[in-house]
Amino acid sequence: MPHLEGRQSILAALRARQRKFQVILIRHGTHAEGVDEVVSTATDLGVPIRYVESRELDSFAHGASHGGMLAMCSAKPRASVEDVIEMIRRLSEPALLLLLEGVDDARNLGFTLRSAEALGVHAVLIKKHLWDFDETEVARPASGAYERLPLVQIDSVQPLQQLQQIGLQLIGCLANVKQTIYDADLTVPTILAIGGEKRGLSGAVRSICNSFVTIPGRGDASSLSLSHAGAIVMAEAMRQRLTR
Amino acid sequence: MPHLEGRQSILAALRARQRKFQVILIRHGTHAEGVDEVVSTATDLGVPIRYVESRELDSFAHGASHGGMLAMCSAKPRASVEDVIEMIRRLSEPALLLLLEGVDDARNLGFTLRSAEALGVHAVLIKKHLWDFDETEVARPASGAYERLPLVQIDSVQPLQQLQQIGLQLIGCLANVKQTIYDADLTVPTILAIGGEKRGLSGAVRSICNSFVTIPGRGDASSLSLSHAGAIVMAEAMRQRLTR
Repeated sequence: MPHLEGRQSILAALRARQRKFQVILIRHGTHAEGVDEVVSTATDLGVPIRYVESRELDSFAHGASHGGMLAMCSAKPRASVEDVIEMIRRLSEPALLLLLEGVDDARNLGFTLRSAEALGVHAVLIKKHLWDFDETEVARPASGAYERLPLVQIDSVQPLQQLQQIGLQLIGCLANVKQTIYDADLTVPTILAIGGEKRGLSGAVRSICNSFVTIPGRGDASSLSLSHAGAIVMAEAMRQRLTR
Repeated sequence: MPHLEGRQSILAALRARQRKFQVILIRHGTHAEGVDEVVSTATDLGVPIRYVESRELDSFAHGASHGGMLAMCSAKPRASVEDVIEMIRRLSEPALLLLLEGVDDARNLGFTLRSAEALGVHAVLIKKHLWDFDETEVARPASGAYERLPLVQIDSVQPLQQLQQIGLQLIGCLANVKQTIYDADLTVPTILAIGGEKRGLSGAVRSICNSFVTIPGRGDASSLSLSHAGAIVMAEAMRQRLTR
């Protein structure tokens, strides 16, 4: 049974209404502020709550950062590319999607999802093997964004081509190409493609990119991490969209 | 005894020549490519190498990502604010420093140091308690930047005032202020101050900031992580410095 830990993840999941909740476990004596909001939201939605001892809670938890609260619930349903296309059609602004390839760390994925939401990304596309991550470890650093952002699992470039057909440009981030993220027009409907640190973007994705961009930096320094590169490119898309 | 794990950290530390090395342990049969470079660099510097069994290496290592290599060495010496002032005087470009308050994660600190170097930061100032982190866990994600970047431990705002006196502006990053990072002039000598996610910048630092900036984003989304906020602000400083 998948579960969620911590007030913020649980509250975000309850509000997003995409998971089925079995029960929420709260440690006796957990400090009131956060608890009240979870209890009232859960009660409104008919989700049962059980107050338990520390030991019982800890036996389910992954780490020590659950803050006295844990929910047993179904996994977050994945969105299909058709769902995303439907969502894009309803948007009143140009779509901004993020494609991540070769993420090798659950926490960095979580932080990236959090920034994606904060920086106006409408959905995130992830290569198949990323779903091997422990959901709890992705959800916590995502600080609720994991529950709210549509996540699409893809295992070929075909969904990307579908998105290109409805007018999105696919922009690949690479080291050492001429065009910078500041030269590229990111105000039109766009998929930003970021590759992992070990192998970068796959050949299959590169072969269908409409153009490539780089983040300018010190030539002799080590390259940016996937997660930081993603944050910088998404912020630049947001800057362009706010100022142009 | 502090130690370093992995080829990249060890090689960066050998080259930076700031630590005293006791010995480098290499696992028998470790793949040749990376080993040769470490061995030749260590030999040039008179650092002894011992080839050991997996079990002996693992008994010292923190994780599984040492790649068959571990070095016993002194801690990296901390720079003083006087060292940094001296370095700034020798720069042929406007200084860019990063001040981090309230980092609560060794890995995120490491990733931030890596990006700081890649984005042209000359030195990083860190509040005292950050030195409680395990050095090995900071050094690995920093990918060599930990060895090369001057790191200054500060426990009051006095060093910041010294830097202001030689002409650096202190820019505090806050949520919900009017001026954005894109409006501020980051091409002049600057200290970028980023606060932790829980408490933000301290009152003491805020009280001496020359101005404040915010990273524009979706109003209703959770704020960016310290590490991503840092990456975005540093990238913007780099952009301004490259284009103005």
